[in-house]
Amino acid sequence: MAGNTMGTLFRVTTWGESHGPAIGAVVDGCPPGIDLEEKDIQKELERRKPGKASSASPRKEADRVELLSGTFEGKTTGTPISLIIRNVDAESASYDDLRDVFRPGHGDFTYQMKYGIRDHRGGGRASGRETAARVAAGAIAKKVIAREGITVTAFTLELGGITARTTSLDNIRKNSLCCPDPKAAARMEKKLEESRKKGDTLGGIVEIRVKGCPPGLGEPVFEKMDADLARALMGIGTVKGVEIGAGFSSARMTGSECNDPLTTLGFATNNAGGILAGITTGGEIVIRAACKPIPSIGKPQETTDILGKPVKLSIRGRHDVSVIPRILPVCEAMVSIVLADHLLRQRAITPAKG
Amino acid sequence: MAGNTMGTLFRVTTWGESHGPAIGAVVDGCPPGIDLEEKDIQKELERRKPGKASSASPRKEADRVELLSGTFEGKTTGTPISLIIRNVDAESASYDDLRDVFRPGHGDFTYQMKYGIRDHRGGGRASGRETAARVAAGAIAKKVIAREGITVTAFTLELGGITARTTSLDNIRKNSLCCPDPKAAARMEKKLEESRKKGDTLGGIVEIRVKGCPPGLGEPVFEKMDADLARALMGIGTVKGVEIGAGFSSARMTGSECNDPLTTLGFATNNAGGILAGITTGGEIVIRAACKPIPSIGKPQETTDILGKPVKLSIRGRHDVSVIPRILPVCEAMVSIVLADHLLRQRAITPAKG
Amino acid sequence: MAGNTMGTLFRVTTWGESHGPAIGAVVDGCPPGIDLEEKDIQKELERRKPGKASSASPRKEADRVELLSGTFEGKTTGTPISLIIRNVDAESASYDDLRDVFRPGHGDFTYQMKYGIRDHRGGGRASGRETAARVAAGAIAKKVIAREGITVTAFTLELGGITARTTSLDNIRKNSLCCPDPKAAARMEKKLEESRKKGDTLGGIVEIRVKGCPPGLGEPVFEKMDADLARALMGIGTVKGVEIGAGFSSARMTGSECNDPLTTLGFATNNAGGILAGITTGGEIVIRAACKPIPSIGKPQETTDILGKPVKLSIRGRHDVSVIPRILPVCEAMVSIVLADHLLRQRAITPAKG
Amino acid sequence: MAGNTMGTLFRVTTWGESHGPAIGAVVDGCPPGIDLEEKDIQKELERRKPGKASSASPRKEADRVELLSGTFEGKTTGTPISLIIRNVDAESASYDDLRDVFRPGHGDFTYQMKYGIRDHRGGGRASGRETAARVAAGAIAKKVIAREGITVTAFTLELGGITARTTSLDNIRKNSLCCPDPKAAARMEKKLEESRKKGDTLGGIVEIRVKGCPPGLGEPVFEKMDADLARALMGIGTVKGVEIGAGFSSARMTGSECNDPLTTLGFATNNAGGILAGITTGGEIVIRAACKPIPSIGKPQETTDILGKPVKLSIRGRHDVSVIPRILPVCEAMVSIVLADHLLRQRAITPAKG
Repeated sequence: MAGNTMGTLFRVTTWGESHGPAIGAVVDGCPPGIDLEEKDIQKELERRKPGKASSASPRKEADRVELLSGTFEGKTTGTPISLIIRNVDAESASYDDLRDVFRPGHGDFTYQMKYGIRDHRGGGRASGRETAARVAAGAIAKKVIAREGITVTAFTLELGGITARTTSLDNIRKNSLCCPDPKAAARMEKKLEESRKKGDTLGGIVEIRVKGCPPGLGEPVFEKMDADLARALMGIGTVKGVEIGAGFSSARMTGSECNDPLTTLGFATNNAGGILAGITTGGEIVIRAACKPIPSIGKPQETTDILGKPVKLSIRGRHDVSVIPRILPVCEAMVSIVLADHLLRQRAITPAKG
Repeated sequence: MAGNTMGTLFRVTTWGESHGPAIGAVVDGCPPGIDLEEKDIQKELERRKPGKASSASPRKEADRVELLSGTFEGKTTGTPISLIIRNVDAESASYDDLRDVFRPGHGDFTYQMKYGIRDHRGGGRASGRETAARVAAGAIAKKVIAREGITVTAFTLELGGITARTTSLDNIRKNSLCCPDPKAAARMEKKLEESRKKGDTLGGIVEIRVKGCPPGLGEPVFEKMDADLARALMGIGTVKGVEIGAGFSSARMTGSECNDPLTTLGFATNNAGGILAGITTGGEIVIRAACKPIPSIGKPQETTDILGKPVKLSIRGRHDVSVIPRILPVCEAMVSIVLADHLLRQRAITPAKG
Repeated sequence: MAGNTMGTLFRVTTWGESHGPAIGAVVDGCPPGIDLEEKDIQKELERRKPGKASSASPRKEADRVELLSGTFEGKTTGTPISLIIRNVDAESASYDDLRDVFRPGHGDFTYQMKYGIRDHRGGGRASGRETAARVAAGAIAKKVIAREGITVTAFTLELGGITARTTSLDNIRKNSLCCPDPKAAARMEKKLEESRKKGDTLGGIVEIRVKGCPPGLGEPVFEKMDADLARALMGIGTVKGVEIGAGFSSARMTGSECNDPLTTLGFATNNAGGILAGITTGGEIVIRAACKPIPSIGKPQETTDILGKPVKLSIRGRHDVSVIPRILPVCEAMVSIVLADHLLRQRAITPAKG
Repeated sequence: MAGNTMGTLFRVTTWGESHGPAIGAVVDGCPPGIDLEEKDIQKELERRKPGKASSASPRKEADRVELLSGTFEGKTTGTPISLIIRNVDAESASYDDLRDVFRPGHGDFTYQMKYGIRDHRGGGRASGRETAARVAAGAIAKKVIAREGITVTAFTLELGGITARTTSLDNIRKNSLCCPDPKAAARMEKKLEESRKKGDTLGGIVEIRVKGCPPGLGEPVFEKMDADLARALMGIGTVKGVEIGAGFSSARMTGSECNDPLTTLGFATNNAGGILAGITTGGEIVIRAACKPIPSIGKPQETTDILGKPVKLSIRGRHDVSVIPRILPVCEAMVSIVLADHLLRQRAITPAKG
């Protein structure tokens, strides 16, 4: 495998460059008989589009998905589902002077080292735009897991150092940052605006909650549910850290504090984050992903070009101030794909009901 | 795949239960012509054995590895390398009264939910003992990457809330906790001793550093180097969080703070942790793994049995107070296996030298 | 994996139904820096198109391929290559009365059994049309192996019981059936014409020759070169038998007849077909694939519908009389993809040249 | 993957060299709750052991299997099952003068070319002995498919040019060659004896029949049931050709002859061999594998050594005259493993029964 496919049974392959003709995904292994239309996918893509939030890029991405295979009369057939999104409004010319320059914090340098050639326009394959294909594929995964009553919700836990004081999901659709704490959201918006003015960017933390997941999903040792979730989230370009349940804070607990007592009503606490020994407990899954600030900044930076010559760089063009909130549906997509895959894998070993 | 294999080209499969006849690993895809003898593997296993540190279990594991295939006259042949470690000194009887009880923080409950059957003795497959097989396989991975000048070193960054104030590798072999800060190490030892007396356990943070890694390793989008490292480390039962480079703290940085300037001498800083867009930069790779406290504690706990009946549980038997420092060679093994795999994968697309 | 992907490092995924909006392929793992343009792929597709041969269907398939990703300024970049071919001239309505009928010899019955739903139009995913996507992907594989001097040539060895008396490749481009024996080709053409008049179809045997393959390609035991070639060819819907070198006739040889003596000039004979113990010898690879007659025949047939009711069926519509010669580029594509994959795999274990 | 693993969900990895300390297999993905003891596996191994048949080698292989993991109190647990068979009675010294010689028809030359190093003793990894590990793993696969009522039976269809005139399975356990035609069996025995006296060997054809297979197993396009079966059988060192149903003879049929009519009682004929479009029909699966004569012959042969110098070679040592009948349980094992894997895969997409 060359890195562009994930999953064992529910398999997602994405393809495409930021400024090529199109991007897309092939979803193989989707069970037959699931209702699926373009609008189901479009709905998720809309959530990833640059919005009205202060963090947003002014680039207009139509992001119209076309469903090319794998369905018949509105239902999946079990054959591969091909999704394509044409690239429009790509101002490739604005990248001309970046052709031989390595933008700090981007994949420019490493792609050049790895392949000896790269499509520099908009970051090519390493662009955040590739995640639109993930969101499209994730929309299908969401339908697969929804049949089993599983829902995945990502929200903004922290942005620019401002932390939500509640993690209740009640209010997350009420502000453009999908932050459960309306007051924190207002402060985050303000901080984003300040940052935009400075030509700088902000990082943050996303929390993802999975409800309705049955116990027993996840495989032993190497393909644990938490291991696969960590890989999926760390596979988003911007993510530099992942934790499950109590996560890094569990390192400061004692065993008697950290262990979740099991009672007749289920687990009394959830430091485990819904996963024990890599397998789901049936409780809520709780994950957090740390997102670094977007590396494309207006402020001048030191770097070099492909010949090693020092260059002073100010990145123009249209960029977000933070990957939050656009990253939220991407996180949901990645988690949903992992869950759909493990759901199918678990079925394979479950004795058929008599 | 059913979760017990990792890697695409350098592939490691582990097998075995804590109290079964043996545990072991099969390493497939190791390049031919590498010097390999049992003592190379034994050396790493010694590092994982319960030691004299205050954190150690009194269980004596002989952990003698036997090399059954894949070498000829002291060199690898390119065929699968089979490693086996017989289980000895396993006091299975001491687990008899745990047969139907779900120990909090362990995989007992989830294995029962997943498979409907489990080997309860010593945690079965979910036991930390399984990691001995990983360490054995990792010893081979270390030889593969050492040929390219790559070294992997794990050390104790934090234990029981006490943090090392330096991360220099100079002193890590000078104390039994492999902590770079001797004063912190002394305080950690003391805290471990206190915890043992209370019948409680401690968590901590491991840091892993990779030196000498060439640029260009890692695959795009889903099999990024950091994604695969995160999965590998989160695949260790005790790990609840993973971060690369600046990790979670990058969420509080601005872009201008977080971006590593590229100079004629290389990257001026290393917030990226040696990985950009999922591909190695050629700089040092820096990873941290958060380890929860060992769930087997002497203190009484609430739980239920397999019929849902409440049980008051005090775990007897021989257990460590912390996974640190025994987890260190396991972390090194996992990271080394990922690196060996990506090293071979990169060769496949690199034009042969003329 | 759900069956629509082949390869470990050079990976091909195809998607699409005969009468859906499009078919296509994603090629992941192609090395960077290879010249690649749409016309390189189009050239191979032209060979698969219904031609002027007597065996041909009158359906006009424009088969214009569009290259959507993975190249930059005419060279591959190492990222996934997405290829799409729009379906045109698909007379779906002519399949309306086949909606609930299982055509003998087709996948109608088994797809219904497997998925409980199927796109009946033109055979859906099981249509021979899917092989156009393989040919497109194979065109890229051909370029990868051509760099190492490897060429793959398929020709018509037998058709309708008429066998070529020579297997010299000199004349195979001189007749529309790509048969090395011009006289046999003329008789084959006549037999095809007779068969068309009867509303019947013919089977045949394709031979594939690989020249310039270096020794050492293929993996031990399960992923032997011959095993992977057999799978690739048997993965073409029409193929019911595969043999390597002396193949089935080796079953009637003695060891002293069958063994190929090794001389200072190489192997004196080639009963092995260029593969020993699953690994290439450096000699010519010789494979034969037996193709059944096309199951879509005009003659009336007995079958049942989805409710099990007997049906008398005469298949109208536009169909070939034989898969030969259109299957030839498909066979070449499948063999080329296998070779490209094993070529990359072998590089991974080959010590870099100093 | 480096070639020593097969299967997606039911995964078998084999390891070991003919004259190393041991050979073995790891079976991962076996469903939990299946009765499994060493004697279940031993029973199959006995069938592969050199017997009293005239074709047999006098090498005594104790072939005692040891079950090291994956079961608890006589039942599988869902965790990896490790099987080991110690090598005994290996007369390595008798191979000393073959150290630098390439035996014709063997993997000696190609392993040397591929790896630059090889264990020459007894053929190392390329030895037929490796198939004992497959038979051991296959015994587990047989138990998995037996639960669904599937049985796999291989028999001798042809040996040394003598063909069985019946394929009824009634008599196959009544002669040591497992030939359904007792008269043919007697002639085969005679021919084997003659061949042994001449220091020569014989090839033959094995037929495998699968009864009780449900419809719907097999995946589209690349992982068709017939494609996977062909790969599995061609992955046996001795096999040079594989055909399904009418196989090569279908190349000489017309469509009206070859199509199997579907009636209210099922398929009226079985030219398809129980597989249509790569998916099982529910009818009997019929496969044939052509086995070349064993390359180790007493007769003098021309070859070269590792330096390219011509060598005259007479192979001493203990060798079979034909792979038949010892290959029969190997064929059954390979087919059973493929079926077990596809059975689990099909479950994953089958809606749970309400």
